[in-house]
Amino acid sequence: MALLDITIIPLDGRDSGFSPFVAGLQELLAQSACSYRLHDMGTTVEGSASELFRLAALLHEHAFGPGVQRVYTVMKIDDRRDRTVHLGDKTASVQARSAGA
Amino acid sequence: MALLDITIIPLDGRDSGFSPFVAGLQELLAQSACSYRLHDMGTTVEGSASELFRLAALLHEHAFGPGVQRVYTVMKIDDRRDRTVHLGDKTASVQARSAGA
Amino acid sequence: MALLDITIIPLDGRDSGFSPFVAGLQELLAQSACSYRLHDMGTTVEGSASELFRLAALLHEHAFGPGVQRVYTVMKIDDRRDRTVHLGDKTASVQARSAGA
Amino acid sequence: MALLDITIIPLDGRDSGFSPFVAGLQELLAQSACSYRLHDMGTTVEGSASELFRLAALLHEHAFGPGVQRVYTVMKIDDRRDRTVHLGDKTASVQARSAGA
Repeated sequence: MALLDITIIPLDGRDSGFSPFVAGLQELLAQSACSYRLHDMGTTVEGSASELFRLAALLHEHAFGPGVQRVYTVMKIDDRRDRTVHLGDKTASVQARSAGA
Repeated sequence: MALLDITIIPLDGRDSGFSPFVAGLQELLAQSACSYRLHDMGTTVEGSASELFRLAALLHEHAFGPGVQRVYTVMKIDDRRDRTVHLGDKTASVQARSAGA
Repeated sequence: MALLDITIIPLDGRDSGFSPFVAGLQELLAQSACSYRLHDMGTTVEGSASELFRLAALLHEHAFGPGVQRVYTVMKIDDRRDRTVHLGDKTASVQARSAGA
Repeated sequence: MALLDITIIPLDGRDSGFSPFVAGLQELLAQSACSYRLHDMGTTVEGSASELFRLAALLHEHAFGPGVQRVYTVMKIDDRRDRTVHLGDKTASVQARSAGA
């Protein structure tokens, strides 16, 4: 099992933020068979490497919506064949801190 | 304000996973003035660009512990000067799904 | 047309460098229909997005050779649909400088 | 010695390409003490980790020119303390292939 971290940036001059765009990607992810988790700088997806590359291609393609002629996608894949890795495993002992805490 | 996403990989042949190593980095982050959040594929930190580059250098350096002669660090910085961005803003409407749900 | 930048890191404890491994990947690239260029920190490949994701999956899979149980792959894709982009276009006016110059 | 690979993307809605912007960064690099090499998807710089993080911060800051309120920077650093690594070492046996060859 592998984890994919993907960030998709539509370079179309929008200056109103990416939120509506990200919502569309989340729908595609929800329709996939993979577990996923949105974080502050991207989305992490759990699956086999072949599933993850196919899904990444789909998400990237989806970003070419109306008026979008250029898309920049950044990905990292951490793929272990020696043991099963799931979303949340690495952060089981997470120590987050909010600005005011 | 900017958000930094950083993943630090010690290339020292350890095959027992990165967890103890990540715990050490979390301590350094806790000592910094920046808010941060560990996720499945890295850590996201909130601060000014200059703070974030300094902190990244510190974390990277720290990874050269006993027996570690090579470190590979991957970073993304999303820096907006037109408005304030905080950790959690992008994921306020997060839709995560667990494998069995 | 799109450009893919890919770096594949086998996390198997080898400390003798990645050169033989990279040579293997170059052979796979040479067999593909895509133009490519090796640089100091990865390989850049030119093709359609769908070709590039398929090729990336192939290269990633190939990295699981004898004794390699974990592979970490980092990718960037710059995909323009408004005009054709080729390898070398961006660096036509390259200004490189060697250490001693 | 370490190698830094850096890609700086001004998210300001420009649709005329990044070339003039990249030229400005190249000037900054030429003024630094570091060797560097522009490639199709970024620039690779050679130096100590501390030099490279300082230079990355400088380049990132420089990208906030007139009208640019958001900058997205992607970096990879491969840092070896067991031996000296220079630009060009990894590609000494480069096998590039052009589209028509």
